[in-house]
Amino acid sequence: MLCRSAILVGVTLAGVLGTAIGVEAQALKDLQTPDTPLVLKAQGSFFVGGEKAEQTQVELGSLGPGGHITVNQMYVRYMVPQGGDGNVPVVMVHGATLTGKSWETTPDGRLGWDEYFVRKGHPVYVPDQVGRGRSGFNQAVFNDVRAGSVPAASQPSWLRFSDEGVWPNFRFGLKPGEPFSDSQFPVTAVDELAKQGVPDVSLGGLPAPNANFKALSDLAGQLNGAVLMGHSQSGSFPLEAALLNAAATRGLVLVEPGRCPAYRPEQIATLAKVPILVVFGDHRDNPTGLPTLPTWQARFEACQALIARLRGAGGQAEMLNPPDRGIRGNSHMIMQDKNHLQIADLILQWIDERVSKRSAGKK
Amino acid sequence: MLCRSAILVGVTLAGVLGTAIGVEAQALKDLQTPDTPLVLKAQGSFFVGGEKAEQTQVELGSLGPGGHITVNQMYVRYMVPQGGDGNVPVVMVHGATLTGKSWETTPDGRLGWDEYFVRKGHPVYVPDQVGRGRSGFNQAVFNDVRAGSVPAASQPSWLRFSDEGVWPNFRFGLKPGEPFSDSQFPVTAVDELAKQGVPDVSLGGLPAPNANFKALSDLAGQLNGAVLMGHSQSGSFPLEAALLNAAATRGLVLVEPGRCPAYRPEQIATLAKVPILVVFGDHRDNPTGLPTLPTWQARFEACQALIARLRGAGGQAEMLNPPDRGIRGNSHMIMQDKNHLQIADLILQWIDERVSKRSAGKK
Repeated sequence: MLCRSAILVGVTLAGVLGTAIGVEAQALKDLQTPDTPLVLKAQGSFFVGGEKAEQTQVELGSLGPGGHITVNQMYVRYMVPQGGDGNVPVVMVHGATLTGKSWETTPDGRLGWDEYFVRKGHPVYVPDQVGRGRSGFNQAVFNDVRAGSVPAASQPSWLRFSDEGVWPNFRFGLKPGEPFSDSQFPVTAVDELAKQGVPDVSLGGLPAPNANFKALSDLAGQLNGAVLMGHSQSGSFPLEAALLNAAATRGLVLVEPGRCPAYRPEQIATLAKVPILVVFGDHRDNPTGLPTLPTWQARFEACQALIARLRGAGGQAEMLNPPDRGIRGNSHMIMQDKNHLQIADLILQWIDERVSKRSAGKK
Repeated sequence: MLCRSAILVGVTLAGVLGTAIGVEAQALKDLQTPDTPLVLKAQGSFFVGGEKAEQTQVELGSLGPGGHITVNQMYVRYMVPQGGDGNVPVVMVHGATLTGKSWETTPDGRLGWDEYFVRKGHPVYVPDQVGRGRSGFNQAVFNDVRAGSVPAASQPSWLRFSDEGVWPNFRFGLKPGEPFSDSQFPVTAVDELAKQGVPDVSLGGLPAPNANFKALSDLAGQLNGAVLMGHSQSGSFPLEAALLNAAATRGLVLVEPGRCPAYRPEQIATLAKVPILVVFGDHRDNPTGLPTLPTWQARFEACQALIARLRGAGGQAEMLNPPDRGIRGNSHMIMQDKNHLQIADLILQWIDERVSKRSAGKK
């Protein structure tokens, strides 16, 4: 396994940097290197939100003194294209057991949506969800459990998806190693996707309401308006952020959302003010392997119902269902699929028509 | 606190993007926006290493089926400057309770060393240490403890540094809120540094030997040679990586290393083949507030001793001690200090003289 992993990393580097480092020849053919340089006005990272918590020496790991730390902050990395700082920013939020990496270089070494949207002129902001990745999490209860001062059941569980579970749930195929004949996911690089997995504490380890909602709403506000894009677990986060500050959310893109909630009428009225696009992939009837959760087709239908309610309230909500356009085989990880730029172009076209032109018309 | 945090984030954005978002005027004066665009041949991210582990349904958080996941992989983000792909790459590894964010935009919104080194022509690679940030960690034992199948003491502790502990240990001042009169750290933005803190499981939660050593060695090998730069906790990692593959490490930069080990003679002989620069800040006699750990002056002296042994074995090892050059007040977070580009220039000069010219001479 380690040997194979090393080879795959070599492939990734080779594809992006254009130099061959002992890779399998047949794995190089799908890789793409941008032909032109990426010209950025600015790039970097910062945090949104966060609050002070006072913790004991034990809760801080017993090395230094007790005191205050910051928790519930959200790490955000950004790239602003040269000449693009007047265009609408796009915020891309990842799904469960993943980080902002989802939107970067694909598992098989192709350009990520983060860079592609920048190359198309949009400032792009990629957070790690509060509680995950570079945003950290609140470790106090784990150290209290370790010290025996609170029961073991006090600590939240950490979620990860096994490789075996990912194949049916992310709709690469019915079973591990047996991709759909039309699968768009680069399944030869599925072990590189596996490396993107990190433990997810959000089922029980985050403050209620989910701290990501306000962080995303605040980020959109600080940007003087943004398109918020969520994926899977975070697919409904843009809706929740818009409910906190609809004026700051210039558009919402829900990519394979885990849920489209049954909002109250006054919430529907608020959300009807914001252009909304829902994007799903193919093979939605595939059993997820997670018997406690609905199929992706059931989630698709819940989103269709939400769209109908929003349109009934005068909203501009629509579904992007690639099979309706003859595009087949897209997976749950649609931003990493082999035709990911084709899907991105459809989203960019929607942003242009429903968000950018709408804003221009208001001026 | 939340209010102040929001303001500081506004400052960061305003400084980098050049637009004012309701910030305190006096906080803007230290911020810098690059005058020229950043032109990249390539940017993105990938993983080094990783291995498969088989885990139970409980160990995976009980939502999906048991099976295999990948653990001990290392996330790496990179930027290659246009025209700079022939220059020596620099790998920047962060310290304890931190992530690769350490090297990005400073807490007060200035250019990070990652971008500065790219602007100076070097491809830059910024990992998250194995077990941290976007590299994830192995969550199995925590879920086993939660389920009651193993004792609570089986799980490792999570380390974080309190704000109160950071001031003396990172040498911003003797006490919180009382910076040294010559402090180079941007203490008005210390709450933004606090947001960079994430829980650190590396005291007990990583495989032995530390999986970061091989990952960094493998990364240097895949890059066909690199300068490895470590900071604080990871200050000795470049030495350990060089011991695994000295040929791949074209230079080592140890920034405020937590330790300079007392290596065996044959290890000294190996390390003497690689140019090594050790960098420390000022105020090293400050009590750390961590009574079980040596002062920074004691660590400085251990590194002086290592340098003497390496030079005795024919090595090119040297100390960059800014006070010797009349540069005072540098902190432990020297890459974020107000004079961080002055320090960076000294390191870049060393790379040019000791690494780049040396390689050119060999050709």
